[in-house]
Amino acid sequence: MLENLAILAPGLLGGSVAQAARQLGLARRIVVWSRRPESRLALAGQPWCDVVAGTPGEAVAGAGLVVIAAPVDKIVELARLIAPHLAAGAIVTDVGSVKGEISRLGHAALAPRAHFVGSHPMAGSEKTGWEHASAGLFSRRTCFVTPLPETDPAAVETVVKFWHNLGAEVVTVTPDAHDEIVAHISHLPQVLASVLGGFLAQKNPGWRNFAGGGLRDTTRIAASDPRIWRAILEQNHDELLRALRRFQDELHAMQSSLENRDWLEVTARLERAKVWREGFRPAP
Amino acid sequence: MLENLAILAPGLLGGSVAQAARQLGLARRIVVWSRRPESRLALAGQPWCDVVAGTPGEAVAGAGLVVIAAPVDKIVELARLIAPHLAAGAIVTDVGSVKGEISRLGHAALAPRAHFVGSHPMAGSEKTGWEHASAGLFSRRTCFVTPLPETDPAAVETVVKFWHNLGAEVVTVTPDAHDEIVAHISHLPQVLASVLGGFLAQKNPGWRNFAGGGLRDTTRIAASDPRIWRAILEQNHDELLRALRRFQDELHAMQSSLENRDWLEVTARLERAKVWREGFRPAP
Repeated sequence: MLENLAILAPGLLGGSVAQAARQLGLARRIVVWSRRPESRLALAGQPWCDVVAGTPGEAVAGAGLVVIAAPVDKIVELARLIAPHLAAGAIVTDVGSVKGEISRLGHAALAPRAHFVGSHPMAGSEKTGWEHASAGLFSRRTCFVTPLPETDPAAVETVVKFWHNLGAEVVTVTPDAHDEIVAHISHLPQVLASVLGGFLAQKNPGWRNFAGGGLRDTTRIAASDPRIWRAILEQNHDELLRALRRFQDELHAMQSSLENRDWLEVTARLERAKVWREGFRPAP
Repeated sequence: MLENLAILAPGLLGGSVAQAARQLGLARRIVVWSRRPESRLALAGQPWCDVVAGTPGEAVAGAGLVVIAAPVDKIVELARLIAPHLAAGAIVTDVGSVKGEISRLGHAALAPRAHFVGSHPMAGSEKTGWEHASAGLFSRRTCFVTPLPETDPAAVETVVKFWHNLGAEVVTVTPDAHDEIVAHISHLPQVLASVLGGFLAQKNPGWRNFAGGGLRDTTRIAASDPRIWRAILEQNHDELLRALRRFQDELHAMQSSLENRDWLEVTARLERAKVWREGFRPAP
């Protein structure tokens, strides 16, 4: 059990970390900080929140583990800000969707006095804010932990155990491998859903009223927060573009098969996708 | 109430029509026919199935309304097959996902003795077969009804009322307008989900184990039946390709914005898609 757990900028993910930690008794005291004064006021009434700090520095003083739950473009900034306030040996992690830059700059901001270990739980949603948080959010979800070669192994172990205790299935990979993976399984699908949504909005927005479950599901994530996603796409720019270009090659190939009425090839493509999709494990 | 309702080739949709009609008391007698003898045997034990006919012709004899629930490439063939067996004034509809050719050839196959009125309930799923059918499947779902100018208005009215009674929200459009709409809101999303699935299968199928709810939802329909979809894509070939090419223009535009790091434009595109997606009415 942690004596002090600090959560900076709790939203959907940070709030869920706090709720799960409280429910599972993983921390004696949970301290949070949020940028906006009205959020701090609202947080003070939450049962998973023992202390609301006025500054990030205050929040992390004495914390054994700090979770930076801010959008990806604010994480390194916060790591630098709290560095002088951390206890020696404190461990800092995050929940950002991109890991290369954050892992390297986070490490540089804290080493050698404290430890930065990047994390990314695959448990987002098109909804944001701790109002949508839940203690079970990480249950049976993948959580990537992305140490650098120079990261302290004991700190990595602590972070891995923390996510494991929250119910997640932890996968340890390098930050760069992480960024390639999520470019494909998260950032590309987000771009496709958004472009499809934008295309249909322009073509005829009224048609959405006729949609069946297929369109509803394929575009659910198009309702995600554009500010959060702009920052993710910006930070994973190169990997995303690589994945997007390769996807477009595949889409062109499908288009050619359709144009040539090569129904054997079209069917083969549909078959491969079906086999792949049926290989998903059951939903958490 | 119908004296005799015939359902040919009941699968997910046809089975749901029969179950709903039984539950709501819309037909005194429900007669079904299925191509495979083992299906006919299994259907004989279903409470929503009073008679299992040995041939399509037997099934429709004396029916006031016939629902052809076969895949789109078999509908016209079945309409032609049953034509000589239909009672004068009988009304035939279908549940196919493409309507231009089916509406025209279906009409030609039956007129003037009986009436063909095309239908398309937007209530499919990646699952197939009447084992997955349910009486509530059409509740608050759009059902397109696609008469030709020459279709008998009373027959159209009967079909509209039938779907309305099953809980659907009926939208009457021309067959060609229907095909343009579904190319965009159903067939294009299917192609994108399948191409994304095929792309990720090829890149690294193991990555799917890390996926969050986003990838799960955006690719759910990639598990759909390739044989059914091949026939749909074939019949709606021209409209689908038009929609696919326009979508690719949008995708290229997004790619350019990303390549140019034009984050204002990227964010504007994400915003437009979010507004569009939030305009969906609540799920049925």
